[in-house]
Order: sequence, then structure tokens, then C-alpha cells
Amino acid sequence: MDVIYVIDILGTFAFAISGALVASKKEFDLFGVIILAFVTAVGGGMLRDILINSHPINWIGDLNYIYTILTAVVCTFLFKSKIAPLRKTFFLFDTIGISVFTLLGLQKGLSLNLPAIVAIIMGMVSAVFGGVIRDVLSREVPLIFKKEIYASACLTGGLIYLLMKQIGVNENVNFIISAIVIITIRTVSVIYKLQLPKIKDDIFTRNQ
Amino acid sequence: MDVIYVIDILGTFAFAISGALVASKKEFDLFGVIILAFVTAVGGGMLRDILINSHPINWIGDLNYIYTILTAVVCTFLFKSKIAPLRKTFFLFDTIGISVFTLLGLQKGLSLNLPAIVAIIMGMVSAVFGGVIRDVLSREVPLIFKKEIYASACLTGGLIYLLMKQIGVNENVNFIISAIVIITIRTVSVIYKLQLPKIKDDIFTRNQ
Amino acid sequence: MDVIYVIDILGTFAFAISGALVASKKEFDLFGVIILAFVTAVGGGMLRDILINSHPINWIGDLNYIYTILTAVVCTFLFKSKIAPLRKTFFLFDTIGISVFTLLGLQKGLSLNLPAIVAIIMGMVSAVFGGVIRDVLSREVPLIFKKEIYASACLTGGLIYLLMKQIGVNENVNFIISAIVIITIRTVSVIYKLQLPKIKDDIFTRNQ
Repeated sequence: MDVIYVIDILGTFAFAISGALVASKKEFDLFGVIILAFVTAVGGGMLRDILINSHPINWIGDLNYIYTILTAVVCTFLFKSKIAPLRKTFFLFDTIGISVFTLLGLQKGLSLNLPAIVAIIMGMVSAVFGGVIRDVLSREVPLIFKKEIYASACLTGGLIYLLMKQIGVNENVNFIISAIVIITIRTVSVIYKLQLPKIKDDIFTRNQ
Repeated sequence: MDVIYVIDILGTFAFAISGALVASKKEFDLFGVIILAFVTAVGGGMLRDILINSHPINWIGDLNYIYTILTAVVCTFLFKSKIAPLRKTFFLFDTIGISVFTLLGLQKGLSLNLPAIVAIIMGMVSAVFGGVIRDVLSREVPLIFKKEIYASACLTGGLIYLLMKQIGVNENVNFIISAIVIITIRTVSVIYKLQLPKIKDDIFTRNQ
Repeated sequence: MDVIYVIDILGTFAFAISGALVASKKEFDLFGVIILAFVTAVGGGMLRDILINSHPINWIGDLNYIYTILTAVVCTFLFKSKIAPLRKTFFLFDTIGISVFTLLGLQKGLSLNLPAIVAIIMGMVSAVFGGVIRDVLSREVPLIFKKEIYASACLTGGLIYLLMKQIGVNENVNFIISAIVIITIRTVSVIYKLQLPKIKDDIFTRNQ
């Protein structure tokens, strides 16, 4: 599981950078930057742990999250103009990050004997709701409610993990395959600009 | 109590539709619609359970809430143009819903031996704060902070329930009377466009 | 500790007034005013208690907070035009308030054997996040993310408290000195309009 822990920390780092960049675009000060990096990086897991009553919550139980976030903020302050061009590298970290966040959140839910559907939701919450809290605090409509296939990738990957677990696939193999599914859906949807449908008029009206 | 459970589910359905309609007006995608329907329908009870440390929280402890919300979202997608004209029907469901949410939340607080004033607040939180979370996520100033007699109906109904309980009124009778009080206050205030006072200048200044 | 309790209540009163004034500027109705006063005054401690799983949470465990907030709202309604000129008095209460909120929150964290860095964060959360919740609910970008040295004063004061505790300074003396540090940093930064740095371009770019 050491590899997964490293990826978890790298994902946290990428999320924190993304939060710090949003904060700097909004002209937040150092404190605002730290808070936005913080909620982006660990807000999803924190919300999950509060919902399922798992204490100590993520960043209180493992201080490495705090240190990772502070490091990310320092890097953003020092190297901002060098970071911006690294967009593709960060997309990679971010995407691998959400796959690991999803599956770790799902496993945590299962380990607490939550129903399968709740465990899948908890995987998605872990990966996605840090960004939602970031957007609420910076007064944006949460991005993932409007534009991107993001949460759906997490939900699909979680579902596949559960199905493969049910039919007895080896846990490590299962983890890797499910992570690849999430990463693939996310990457393909960004490349081809895929979006979820919206409600405009109802289906019957449109067909008339 | 079966009747109350049915009303609870119908209220959840009405709240979820209202959340889905707000999301569709904001051009949220399917995921955004589900999340907004979800927080509108069960956000109040979820906040209550977190505040009073009652686990598993509402929608984790009873999966019927999730199924009800998903059904409501599907209905909104399929029949949006048919739903809009049903405004009065939904107002009815919604209003009966908040009366039941209030009294169930209040009873939950009492069953945990919380002080009366906290139990009344918990009833109001159950009925009202799903809408507040909906408004925050869709970047609106929470409606109930500005325009409507809504929370006040819940607080009044909760107070009356407690008073009647104190003087020994039968619990079922009490529940029905208190629910009717909430429904009546809410309906009358909408028909006559009643509003709570605002602070503009202070009373003494105005009288001078 | 009686003196500290009195200051805690006075701080709660000052925070509630500040929330009520923001709400009245936004033309919230009575209910909105009460909610905004409420979250401003006890939202930080409430968030802290949820994060560290300390139940009953602050305002449920001690009803005096609710009574203090309701009194503050009534005063705001009755005497608004008399309160506005008292700005300096309220700044005093508010500043003494955050110093006490910080140190009480920190002590609570320590009493639950949380790591030092988490306890310091909890002190800051207690003092600062009521205002953040207030700003989110009234659809403002949280003030403390942009303009003021506020949270930094709390973090510094918390750090000094911990250091002095480590070297064995008497607890009451420690409390008073740390509170004075917070009050001084806050006051000086307001008088001289000090601000934290922002990320604009990175340091190396700027130096070239």
C-alpha cells in the first residue's frame, strides 16, 4: 500500500497547488491562499469523515497532509510563473489523485460496513467535494456542477471496483484497474470536451 | 407512524424536485442537478444529525431517501415542462413536508434529551437548512433570509408542539395539530405576502 | 476562570452584533438577522467541535450562547442608530473576543490530546471561521481571505501560548500574555493598515 500512500500525497500536493492558484487569481492574501489550498486538498476527505463519523478526521489523524499543503503553498509563492506552464503535469497528478482519493474513500466506507451505494458516494465525495468547498469559499458556482465529467468518472470507477470485488478479483489488481478506468474516463472527456446532459426542455416536448 | 413516514418521503420528493428545478434553471448538468436535489431534500436533516451527533445520519441510515431523490431527478428530466404547471401541487407537498420535517426533527432532538430550545431549533434546521445549502451552492443569497415566512412557521409549530406535550396532549393529536399550525402559517403568509420586519433605522429614530 | 467566561460571553455578544449589522445592511429579515448573528458568534466554535468530535457542541452544551445572541439581536433592532457610532467599543470587544476564543479553542484541542499544530489551528478556527460562514451565507468573499491581519494574529498568539506552556510558564500568566499578543498584533495591524503578502508574480520573476 506504500505506492498508494505516495500517490495520495502527490494528489494532495496537486490539489493544494490548484487551490492556491485559484486563490492567487482572486487576489487572496497568504492566509486566504493557505485556506483555499487546504480545503481543496483535504476538504473532500474531511467532509466524508464527518458524514460517516470517522474520527480523527483525515488531516487531524495524519499530519503529513498539513505539511504537504504548506509545502505546496510555499512552492506556489516562490515559483508561480514556473508552475503555470506545467499545466499538463498537474492535470496528470490531479487525475491520478482523484482516482486514488475515490478508491481510498470507497474502501474506508466499506471498512465501516456502510451500504455499497453509500460507499460509492463516499468515494466520490472524497475526490470531488474539496473542489466544491473551494468554489463556495471563492464565490464561484462549483465548476463540477456545470462543465466537466469529473464526479461521474469517480462514480463509475467506484461502481466497477465494487463489481469486481463482488466477483472475487484480487484487491490490488482491482484497485489498479478501477483507477485506470477513472483516469481514462476523465482524460477522454477532457480531450473530447464531453459533457453530461442538461435539463432544458423535457424529452417529450423536444420530440414533438 | 406509517402515515408520517409516507409524508416524510413525499416531502423529500417535493424538496428534491424543487432543488432539481433550481439547478436546471442555473444550467447545471446532470451531476449538478442530482447534488442540488440531494442537498435540498436531505441537507437539513443531515446538518441536524451532524450537529447533535446522531449517527448514521439520515440518508446513510435509510437508503429510501437516496432512491426517492434519484426518482425525483429522473422525473424532472423526463417531464420538466409537465411539472412546472403543477406549482400548486408542489407547494402543497412542500408545505406538508416542512411541517413533518420540523416535527420529526424536534422529536429526534427530544429523544436525545436535548434542551427544549435546542430541540425546537433542530426541528427548524431539519426543515429549512436544506434550502439554505441549496442556495449557497447555487450562489444565491438564501431565500429564507430575505423574503418569506418559512422558518418562523417551523419555530412556532415546534413551540406549540412542546407546549401541548407539556400539558399532556396525546402525541398523535399533538403532531397533527402542530403540523396544521405550521401549514396554516406558511399558507396564509404566502397568500397575503406577509414578511418579517427588517432593521432599517432603529425604532426610536423612526418615532422621532 | 470566571473572568474568562465573562469575556467569552462579551466576545460572543460583539460577534453577534457584527453579524446582525451585516445582515441588516443586506436587508435580511428578522430570521436572517438571527441566523447571521448566530453563525458569526458561535460558528467558529461549532465548526471546531464538529472537526474534533467534541459533543455536545458549544452552543448546545451551554445555552447562555443562544441567550446572548438573542439579546444582541434585540439590541441591534432597538438601537441600531445608537450602535453604529460605538464602532471603537465594538472593535475592542471583538478584539478581546478573538483573543479569548483563540486561547479557549486551543486549550480545548490540547485537552483532547490533539497534536500541537492541530490545537493551534483549532484556536484559529474558533476565532475566525464564524466570520467566514457569515460571509459565505451573505454571499461575500470571506473578508479575512483578502484584507486583514486577523487569523495570523490568532495563529501567532496560539504559538506563543504553546511555547510558553512548554517552558513551564504559569497557565494564567500565559493566557494573559498570549491574549495581549493577539490583541496587540490585531490593533497595530488595523492602525497601520498592515496586510499579508499576495501572490502576484513569483519572487524570481519579480527580481529579474
